[in-house]
Amino acid sequence: MADSVTTLTGAEALVSTLADHGVTACFANPGTSEMHLVTALDHEPRIRSVLCLFEGVATGAADGHARVTGQPAMTLLHLGAGYLNGGANIHNAKRAWTPMINVIGDHAVPHLRYDAPLTSNIRGLAGPNSVWLKSADRVADAGELAAEAWEASFGPVPGPVSLLLPADTAWTEGGKPGKARKRPALWAPDPNRIAAAAKAVRNAMKPVILINGTALKPAGLAQAARLKASGIRVLTDTFFPRMARGAGLFAPERMQYFAEGAMADLEGTDLMLVAGTQVPVAFFSYPGRPSVLVPESCTPMIIGGPESDSAAILAALADALGAKTSADGAPLDTPGAPSGALNAATIGASIARHLPEGSFVSDDGVSNGLPSFMMTGRARPHDWMMLTGGAIGQGMPLALGAALAAPDRKTLCLTGDGAGMYTNQALWSMAREQANVVTVVFVNHSYRILNIELARTGAGNPGRVAEDLLGLGRPEIDWVKLSEAQGVPAVNAATAEEFDAALERAFREPGPHLIAAHVPAR
Amino acid sequence: MADSVTTLTGAEALVSTLADHGVTACFANPGTSEMHLVTALDHEPRIRSVLCLFEGVATGAADGHARVTGQPAMTLLHLGAGYLNGGANIHNAKRAWTPMINVIGDHAVPHLRYDAPLTSNIRGLAGPNSVWLKSADRVADAGELAAEAWEASFGPVPGPVSLLLPADTAWTEGGKPGKARKRPALWAPDPNRIAAAAKAVRNAMKPVILINGTALKPAGLAQAARLKASGIRVLTDTFFPRMARGAGLFAPERMQYFAEGAMADLEGTDLMLVAGTQVPVAFFSYPGRPSVLVPESCTPMIIGGPESDSAAILAALADALGAKTSADGAPLDTPGAPSGALNAATIGASIARHLPEGSFVSDDGVSNGLPSFMMTGRARPHDWMMLTGGAIGQGMPLALGAALAAPDRKTLCLTGDGAGMYTNQALWSMAREQANVVTVVFVNHSYRILNIELARTGAGNPGRVAEDLLGLGRPEIDWVKLSEAQGVPAVNAATAEEFDAALERAFREPGPHLIAAHVPAR
Repeated sequence: MADSVTTLTGAEALVSTLADHGVTACFANPGTSEMHLVTALDHEPRIRSVLCLFEGVATGAADGHARVTGQPAMTLLHLGAGYLNGGANIHNAKRAWTPMINVIGDHAVPHLRYDAPLTSNIRGLAGPNSVWLKSADRVADAGELAAEAWEASFGPVPGPVSLLLPADTAWTEGGKPGKARKRPALWAPDPNRIAAAAKAVRNAMKPVILINGTALKPAGLAQAARLKASGIRVLTDTFFPRMARGAGLFAPERMQYFAEGAMADLEGTDLMLVAGTQVPVAFFSYPGRPSVLVPESCTPMIIGGPESDSAAILAALADALGAKTSADGAPLDTPGAPSGALNAATIGASIARHLPEGSFVSDDGVSNGLPSFMMTGRARPHDWMMLTGGAIGQGMPLALGAALAAPDRKTLCLTGDGAGMYTNQALWSMAREQANVVTVVFVNHSYRILNIELARTGAGNPGRVAEDLLGLGRPEIDWVKLSEAQGVPAVNAATAEEFDAALERAFREPGPHLIAAHVPAR
Repeated sequence: MADSVTTLTGAEALVSTLADHGVTACFANPGTSEMHLVTALDHEPRIRSVLCLFEGVATGAADGHARVTGQPAMTLLHLGAGYLNGGANIHNAKRAWTPMINVIGDHAVPHLRYDAPLTSNIRGLAGPNSVWLKSADRVADAGELAAEAWEASFGPVPGPVSLLLPADTAWTEGGKPGKARKRPALWAPDPNRIAAAAKAVRNAMKPVILINGTALKPAGLAQAARLKASGIRVLTDTFFPRMARGAGLFAPERMQYFAEGAMADLEGTDLMLVAGTQVPVAFFSYPGRPSVLVPESCTPMIIGGPESDSAAILAALADALGAKTSADGAPLDTPGAPSGALNAATIGASIARHLPEGSFVSDDGVSNGLPSFMMTGRARPHDWMMLTGGAIGQGMPLALGAALAAPDRKTLCLTGDGAGMYTNQALWSMAREQANVVTVVFVNHSYRILNIELARTGAGNPGRVAEDLLGLGRPEIDWVKLSEAQGVPAVNAATAEEFDAALERAFREPGPHLIAAHVPAR
């Protein structure tokens, strides 16, 4: 008498509903309470299930997958502890406005009250970094809540959602697919704000516009070029989720990282428009330095926040200003082969030379990534993805997810040795999935940025203990062994020539590769 | 005019107050907002600062340090993201009733409102697993709150506390040492409950007592032996924070892990007393199986929970029952050298042979740890420490902290390969600190427990995807390389003879060692 619908378990209803909505990847580290989710994934060919040996790899990979596809990926996390392990990269995803569906297994509902060892307040833990959170306590709701979770991950401000799945909901039959949802669109430009912004631009001496979001796609950059040609300085946030770059594309400037540099750079600015992002704020505060990176004489004007289609805003503003279509961006211009000492600049030159067209770059390189960014402005067209939330350990997981979303392309990962250690388990998943990721580790045996910051915060000269707390030497980590241990071929590079040859080779060969690039500590 | 007291920064007031109260270790991964804490630690010789390359290592190590010393250790975590990374082992510490002081750096108070990239709701994230949480928003409070945090970590139920330190409190002068606190004692036995329990024992046919906490120290075990001699079966929780064991000590039985086994084992029991722990609950729930591990005919009687001095409870109960002092426990009895295939049993034999007197064991060995436990019951006296919270990735960090707390002893770490990968960065800190830890990794290229659980939950036979999600093969992790990459000497062992020789050598030599013990997957 049972029809086919009622034979779905809650786990199957959840998984198939996500697949119905276009979810194609699940980054997972299951436990006992998720066994029926594992079985449901086993039966769902539309979703690629990827085992990650630590949940921070799973959530970072889901972020990278979504930045490439524009669709949320699913994660599978084991109760509150699994959520905590994945939490830092969920924080980062929230700060990148990345849609993400975190499916968190929980104890069976009747078991929860007994306070078993793995019980925790998952709603409390997951709430702060979720844009939506519900628990599928009844099997009849599992499919519908999956559809709602998918929809909610798009916003109004896109971000991570948390869907709790109690084990008894997962194992009980009676699940139904959720109703099909339409993908929510980003908000369209507000004509009144566009008109006000255009008027303000006409009255300004030195206007800037700060952009992020869809404005950093090729079509958005073409509109940004029109604004630039009509006299508006175009800046992006220091860190952005994804930007199209390279030959033929307009290249906006980036806000400087350190507050004093950013403020000096903006001196005299009398109008700051904001499209697709927030008013700029210093990453950290320092004694006697400003928090908000807007000159005193300048009032920021938000045309649209991260919930808005910033490319459409730029087009509307350019039209309102009567801006002409601008000439194309700069042509291809790559440097010659670098030689001599290996450092951030010679590494940048090699990357600019060899980066294949259509690549994705995952930049968690902290202090050493900037030269590579600057030198690739006229390289073959590519997309650059950054750590926006400041929690290190995103670079390799993000690259893993991006590479699986774009298997026909190359993904370059730039990471520091301090950052890379956080989620080094990503290497294993790269090996298992034969992901086309070339990981460059800037090996300087130091949290270099912190040595800079120690001075900047006025915390004094480091003594022995402080040096130890900021240094990764004693012992020096052997990145080649660490990588080979997890199945990723790796080489050391100590000169510019060695690095250049290693990078060329790594891009040429399929599958994952790692280059330990030995750069100066200071 | 300023006296010496007012020259303390908030960071210095916090750190020196904790040192005044006997805190001797800080496990740290600092960021920009913690630079003044780094400087304060630099100037505080009473606290040993240990860099951990991932916060989960720091919190697990603080747990291990506290289990050995009985005093809370301090951690230094970088904002909400750092807390999340350390969160799973904080959960585990909470479930072990371990005092722990997590010092979480935060943005300067005036900076918080601007929602900088690393801003998060730290109170929300840290609340669920903290037994106390406050933020030192004013420099004058930093020392006093440090003292309060120390005191609160002892309870009534001991556990992790969270002390937030905004950067401006850290860097501002005007801090004062906190008032000296007295260490809170565990609760003394309640005479009425002891009398009621004694009466119930006299009326019971088949009484058991479930013990944990101080009852598992040598003096408590001697009292447990008296109860056993007077006809009460003595059980411990399946997992406990620390138990004294070996020759001469009374050995209680352990509750079985799987619910059906535990219930069969307890059949006919008509009284369950509980001292120093909670009513026993199944780790997970399964379709149609019980949650609470107490027979239907049996009412549990809690004489004292984890807030109580269970050793004193046992003594009072034994006195009330007129129980005689029992004979000593079994004499030293270690097996001969094992030979042939390497498996959990032959490994257990080697451990029983070679475990040095006074050792600490950190057991995160999941499915392979049990034989080692069973075979060491009459080994040289030692202390066994377990994963009580179920969040894997505790074993190596806990061993690191224990070894630094007891530098003249040996610490043995038993971990699975799945569990070990979670926090493999602990190896690097073992190498830097030259911790006397011998790590045994049970290498079976599998989340073996999950293959068992998949069948038990009725989730069906694994297909290809499910097998991939529960298997660590493809590629196989090279634990020797992974360990050597981080500075810890390592060897493979594939036979009982190889393992026995490797273990003997590792215990003999100073500093950290790792043995990759290749055991069958099923």
